[in-house]
Amino acid sequence: MSLSIDSSSQVLENGYEHAELLSGNNDEHEGVMVNMEKPMDSKVFLTALRASISLWRKQGKRGVWIKLPIGLANLIESAVKEGFHYHHAEPDYLMLVHWISESTTSTIPANATHRVGIGAIVMNDKRELLVVQEKSGKLKGTGIWKIPTGVVDAGEDIFKAAVREVKEETNIDTEFVEILGFRQTHKSFFEKSDLFFLCMMRPLSFDVQKQELEIDAAKWMPFEEYTAQQIVEKPGFYKCITDICLAKVDGDYIGFSPRLVKSSFTDQLSYFYLNEQDSNSS
Amino acid sequence: MSLSIDSSSQVLENGYEHAELLSGNNDEHEGVMVNMEKPMDSKVFLTALRASISLWRKQGKRGVWIKLPIGLANLIESAVKEGFHYHHAEPDYLMLVHWISESTTSTIPANATHRVGIGAIVMNDKRELLVVQEKSGKLKGTGIWKIPTGVVDAGEDIFKAAVREVKEETNIDTEFVEILGFRQTHKSFFEKSDLFFLCMMRPLSFDVQKQELEIDAAKWMPFEEYTAQQIVEKPGFYKCITDICLAKVDGDYIGFSPRLVKSSFTDQLSYFYLNEQDSNSS
Repeated sequence: MSLSIDSSSQVLENGYEHAELLSGNNDEHEGVMVNMEKPMDSKVFLTALRASISLWRKQGKRGVWIKLPIGLANLIESAVKEGFHYHHAEPDYLMLVHWISESTTSTIPANATHRVGIGAIVMNDKRELLVVQEKSGKLKGTGIWKIPTGVVDAGEDIFKAAVREVKEETNIDTEFVEILGFRQTHKSFFEKSDLFFLCMMRPLSFDVQKQELEIDAAKWMPFEEYTAQQIVEKPGFYKCITDICLAKVDGDYIGFSPRLVKSSFTDQLSYFYLNEQDSNSS
Repeated sequence: MSLSIDSSSQVLENGYEHAELLSGNNDEHEGVMVNMEKPMDSKVFLTALRASISLWRKQGKRGVWIKLPIGLANLIESAVKEGFHYHHAEPDYLMLVHWISESTTSTIPANATHRVGIGAIVMNDKRELLVVQEKSGKLKGTGIWKIPTGVVDAGEDIFKAAVREVKEETNIDTEFVEILGFRQTHKSFFEKSDLFFLCMMRPLSFDVQKQELEIDAAKWMPFEEYTAQQIVEKPGFYKCITDICLAKVDGDYIGFSPRLVKSSFTDQLSYFYLNEQDSNSS
């Protein structure tokens, strides 16, 4: 059933006669999603919200979502007073949610908890590593060379993010080879955690052009010169990266490769990263 | 410099004489974090915010963060009017941010983009798989048996989440063996993406007791009976899981194991997941 704020008034048993109702879309889980778009007086909103919740309870709805664009920040306080809490926020909107069912336990899904990043190992035939110096961050101004790194956007495949970041920072075209490993860190930003995927890449072009905005310098550097840097040489995260890199280049190290797999429920495709070599040999 | 709302009034050049100032803590990136805790009238807040921003600009601050507990939702509209936008939200607070520097480009870090989950393959010596039927979700009421799955919390190590979820759902104690692979899916909830880690576990106890809240049934099931289920047998995600499981149990499949690694900058420890076997042999 679709409700509308400007629908003809409805009579409800609990006294909300002729009250306007909020427009909502039903979801698959006995929930209602209210997507507020037009400006509204907060008192009008509060009255409509109360009447709507009363109706939704009668209809057996359990969870109610309200998406408020940042321009409608005047309505947040009313929603909170009616029992809503925050679910998540992006720069331009706030999502609120309220479990209105009194007889069932909330099954509201968790908010996103992790940021995802990549680091790209790109080595040419002369055993030179593609390295950069960044204009900001921990290594700014230290003269230390590092591998290209970057953030994986929501909705972006990890291996595509690696190709994109290398291209953006150095103008080098690459082909993704494997994920060699990944690191999980905590409290990397407020309470959120971080997943960093170390990617092996094959260069397809060789003319380095640094990006002006974020990158101070970029070049091909002899691998042994890179590893001789103090921060890379001492035990720790950087050394772990070069050890795995050497195991891949000089040894038989096998990482995870992306395989396109269909959902078991729908036609949706997504990438499953696995040890493709061992998987095939069995 | 530490500011305080109840400090003696300060004289500012632009007319905010004697205005109260918001209390803020400086961060490492020329930023200020305002942690609002006490209730405040929205007009008083607006005046204090304007005066504070004026002062912070003079001090060369670039980014200003305001953390508002849900009880202070009345202050959001004022902050938005002054140029703040949302950064992220948790059930009980909203984080707003405003890049006040006019001469530099915003370096405000991205919000969390991914939810992280685990699936646990637990097999005993009789080649029986630990399986459950859930009380909610896609498979509710279908009679289909699945491996235990769950959500990794912010701040929780992936392999520890796998041990915890198996214990919670089935009361079986396990030892983590390896991550066999992982899947990345998009738009799994609103615009967020999802990372699902397939974990191989070794059972340490064998007496199954299902959890009442989420689990309808739990048991040890002959592996071939599990794979004969239609949804597991047909090509797709479920089949991919059993193929990798077979490659591990009957073949030489090697996944990623957690290695404790120190940061290259601090003493902070975190887990790096890698192909430990190939890494050592090189």
